[in-house]
Amino acid sequence: MADVWLAALITATPQEGFELALTLSRRGVRYTQPDTDTLKRLRAEYAESAEGLTAASQVVAINFQTVAAANNYWRA
Amino acid sequence: MADVWLAALITATPQEGFELALTLSRRGVRYTQPDTDTLKRLRAEYAESAEGLTAASQVVAINFQTVAAANNYWRA
Amino acid sequence: MADVWLAALITATPQEGFELALTLSRRGVRYTQPDTDTLKRLRAEYAESAEGLTAASQVVAINFQTVAAANNYWRA
Amino acid sequence: MADVWLAALITATPQEGFELALTLSRRGVRYTQPDTDTLKRLRAEYAESAEGLTAASQVVAINFQTVAAANNYWRA
Amino acid sequence: MADVWLAALITATPQEGFELALTLSRRGVRYTQPDTDTLKRLRAEYAESAEGLTAASQVVAINFQTVAAANNYWRA
Amino acid sequence: MADVWLAALITATPQEGFELALTLSRRGVRYTQPDTDTLKRLRAEYAESAEGLTAASQVVAINFQTVAAANNYWRA
Repeated sequence: MADVWLAALITATPQEGFELALTLSRRGVRYTQPDTDTLKRLRAEYAESAEGLTAASQVVAINFQTVAAANNYWRA
Repeated sequence: MADVWLAALITATPQEGFELALTLSRRGVRYTQPDTDTLKRLRAEYAESAEGLTAASQVVAINFQTVAAANNYWRA
Repeated sequence: MADVWLAALITATPQEGFELALTLSRRGVRYTQPDTDTLKRLRAEYAESAEGLTAASQVVAINFQTVAAANNYWRA
Repeated sequence: MADVWLAALITATPQEGFELALTLSRRGVRYTQPDTDTLKRLRAEYAESAEGLTAASQVVAINFQTVAAANNYWRA
Repeated sequence: MADVWLAALITATPQEGFELALTLSRRGVRYTQPDTDTLKRLRAEYAESAEGLTAASQVVAINFQTVAAANNYWRA
Repeated sequence: MADVWLAALITATPQEGFELALTLSRRGVRYTQPDTDTLKRLRAEYAESAEGLTAASQVVAINFQTVAAANNYWRA
């Protein structure tokens, strides 16, 4: 991908960090399946599946570990 | 999401940290499936599945790693 | 849950730490499914499943990482 | 369990550390299913399943992370 | 494999680090299945599966943890 | 197992470290299923399965985290 979508792991707040973890998780999918229409169709499918949603939440949790460590856990 | 739901990773006790890990896990799901009725229906479903419950507990465990590290494990 | 079940991550020995990891894993389940009878029924089910037992052991392993780090690996 | 099976995470060599990780993984299973005959039957089953063996190896890998960190990676 | 495909974990930017994590994930597959035609066929298959894409994204997330730590999270 | 197969986690290069992670992953399997013929048959099976290959790559990624940390990420 030629565009810059990840300039830094630093965020202002934990919540923005969590949302960055969400972006990382989706990008991890998009690199394998770049077609937007296919992605939309599949997302609609697993958004109705308890197992699919739990798996998605797990990937976010793993990426949030990375983002939180990068931000030194937003300690004051 | 416009509301602030995650202001800090710091909690007073390990148990509150565990409950924050639970919140992170559920938010990870809600970002993908924001519809509350669908979430309730799916939760009822996997709350009856040994596999679903173990998977949910795993996501909590991963998020608890992050929260515990942020709190320096609540060491005195 | 109003009761205090997790006062500290510090334990006297690695084995007690492992057993605390087990408690964390089961609490991760109980927060999602608080009904004791349902939990007993499901536990009986996955205790007979190789896949279910391996998945349970994985959650314990993740929680043990947290407890072991909190205790600085019980180094003398 | 009343017996002491985990006195320390320190081992003399990385290989002994890996074998301790194996022990931790099996203990994680045994706490959920303490019956030895059932365990033997289930182990025979997943030892013939590629998926089951990969899952078992994953739990060992997670426990080996803990043991290796405890031993400071056996650096000289 | 005789060729050098991984000379260093250091990258100039987080995004390049994420792409290196992608490379690590694919190499992890290729060591087990070196046949390029088989890989292409299987990739086409799981690129149409929500579950397969989430699992792939999870491996990337785990490898990204390693690469990000190696780069000290690209902190200035 | 009586033979010494893991003398150290230190490797000269990241790529050798990745290959050591592969060895750890396979040994994790072999401790559970020591029969070489069975292993060959099962490997042939999951080498044709997208899901099996992704799962194998995930175990390698977890072991690579350990090896990379042991080598301090091969920083100069």
